[in-house]
Amino acid sequence: MSTDYKFEGWLGKDKSSANGKMVWGEYKPKPFADEDVDIEVECCGICGSDLHTLRSDWGPSNYPVVVGHEVVGKVARVGKDVKHVKVGDRVGVGAQSRSCLKTDCYECANGYEQQCKQKEKADTYNTVLPDGSSTYGGFANYTRIQGHWAIPIPKGLPSNEAAPALCGGVTIYAPLRNNGCGPGKKVGIVGIGGIGHFGILFAKALGADEVVAISRSASKKEDAMKLGADKFIATDEDKDWATHHQNSLDLIVSTVSSPKMPLSQYLGLLKFRGQFIQIGAPGDSLPAISAFNLIANEVKLGGSQTGSVEDIKEMMDLMVSKKIKAWIQNRPLKEANKAIVDMDHGQARYRYCLINEEHGGQL
Amino acid sequence: MSTDYKFEGWLGKDKSSANGKMVWGEYKPKPFADEDVDIEVECCGICGSDLHTLRSDWGPSNYPVVVGHEVVGKVARVGKDVKHVKVGDRVGVGAQSRSCLKTDCYECANGYEQQCKQKEKADTYNTVLPDGSSTYGGFANYTRIQGHWAIPIPKGLPSNEAAPALCGGVTIYAPLRNNGCGPGKKVGIVGIGGIGHFGILFAKALGADEVVAISRSASKKEDAMKLGADKFIATDEDKDWATHHQNSLDLIVSTVSSPKMPLSQYLGLLKFRGQFIQIGAPGDSLPAISAFNLIANEVKLGGSQTGSVEDIKEMMDLMVSKKIKAWIQNRPLKEANKAIVDMDHGQARYRYCLINEEHGGQL
Repeated sequence: MSTDYKFEGWLGKDKSSANGKMVWGEYKPKPFADEDVDIEVECCGICGSDLHTLRSDWGPSNYPVVVGHEVVGKVARVGKDVKHVKVGDRVGVGAQSRSCLKTDCYECANGYEQQCKQKEKADTYNTVLPDGSSTYGGFANYTRIQGHWAIPIPKGLPSNEAAPALCGGVTIYAPLRNNGCGPGKKVGIVGIGGIGHFGILFAKALGADEVVAISRSASKKEDAMKLGADKFIATDEDKDWATHHQNSLDLIVSTVSSPKMPLSQYLGLLKFRGQFIQIGAPGDSLPAISAFNLIANEVKLGGSQTGSVEDIKEMMDLMVSKKIKAWIQNRPLKEANKAIVDMDHGQARYRYCLINEEHGGQL
Repeated sequence: MSTDYKFEGWLGKDKSSANGKMVWGEYKPKPFADEDVDIEVECCGICGSDLHTLRSDWGPSNYPVVVGHEVVGKVARVGKDVKHVKVGDRVGVGAQSRSCLKTDCYECANGYEQQCKQKEKADTYNTVLPDGSSTYGGFANYTRIQGHWAIPIPKGLPSNEAAPALCGGVTIYAPLRNNGCGPGKKVGIVGIGGIGHFGILFAKALGADEVVAISRSASKKEDAMKLGADKFIATDEDKDWATHHQNSLDLIVSTVSSPKMPLSQYLGLLKFRGQFIQIGAPGDSLPAISAFNLIANEVKLGGSQTGSVEDIKEMMDLMVSKKIKAWIQNRPLKEANKAIVDMDHGQARYRYCLINEEHGGQL
């Protein structure tokens, strides 16, 4: 495979890019290092973070940005220190693509390399690296990452289903897995969107006794039941839902990010020593809760950001072994601008995947 | 032992009783049942809850109340269904004294009987029972409880040190024990009062690598170090304490109940996947936090109320085996009114125990 390719992608040049104003163009990736890998992008999921970054919602973005951190494609180039993949292998990368990987880093040494706190840590896009170069994501023809983060995609898992799982999927797989989702447990998923739909699928596949989908309206009830939910709570419509379902769940994972969510009532759904894990991040503070919400039933309120490379591998193996069928809608990479606007309007059912037909992606 | 004794104690007849206006008098306990035990009170610790109840801080109290739920004394009467203690045994009772104990109760069947949610559940005082009678605590000559809750005090543990541990002690022992305090862990204790002083002692005895006492001022630093703390943080005085100690602790247990506590900064002291357990209960909401406070480092914010009978037994065994010396100040039961006022003024170092000289208590 030739390595004289140019890096071209959908450049977000300012906040207006989020309104479908990204521009296709060339950019300069970081210098290739012995630990690096280039991926020829076959497809890339669209994540809410892409829109937040294009819009500078989380602080000024490092424009021009190329977003996209749910990437699957073929290895196009391998640094000499990278041993686990070779040119041509099908690999993926999620939201993180670099960390220090040193043995004296608490996080890297303990398998939480996604939480590395050293300067070498980088997100897949919009991070300025110590040498002044930047990371660029998968709304592009190629992406350059640290080899460690190039995760082989198991045979039997379609690229367009693997891609959205690399961020959206593992974001909810990790807190389910790390907080005991499995046989004997009743699990709630708040918010039935791209991430929540993975949550229902994974909670069932992990063997939870009961999966309860929780949404404001009943508009997604039919979908949730098809995805495998056993019960559905519509908090704006079901009278007395909080008392009716009180003290019934072992674990709730919340994907919503509204600062107005009924957090106290959600906590009341938990059994003794139950756990509520927040993965959606409201820009404002979380709704106020009383200490009694936590003390009376010894429940915990936690947060989870993403998963490790091992979490991602385990999740993909589960997707294959349990024949999990993610609900993905393919969109052409060349029409990325239209796709991000539709995504922003909540039209995805439940995740868009941008397909790069020039690199073997199939619509 | 005769059973024709009268029940007499310090009656709180209205809110003003908290200002040292309790009145000694007779009251009628619940009818004695086969599952019950009477305790001849030798001594009784003073807990913050006693003042809150006398003042109706947590809703209108069921006056007249007799507070006190850190009781040690001799068994004076044993119902025929109670097998584990006999008349004359030295026993104690903490904040709970009744629960359903049925096999189909999730909490009782799983060793969390202190969290029983059935109508039979009762606190040691100020609970109206299903038959209309009430529970009365240990600021008295006798107290009547369900036999299950009469916990034998191990030999070698002085009554006046065991008593305050039955509520104040186990309130912090349980969250330390249930959240992994032990070798390899660094543990913070927020608030150096009656409960916090037990926290330092127990965290050390459980083998934590490092115990960090956290208070607003340095006024209790010397005491905290004598109790066994390795470090001391004075949040109102140490410049940059939040950044200086960031990401350093595995577990923090907070005994403070100020709605103004710097909760976000406390959470920032936690390592990846660390836990912050709140046991103090502010009347208002907890300070607002952002989802990022939880998500970024996958930390958890939880609550804990008290411990089970097994937790109390284990704690007392630890007190004996590790020769833990609680800092207790004896006060005569007959001067209970003066003692509760001093307690309310924060003068205890670190727990008062009311001594009933008429029943063998030694000042």
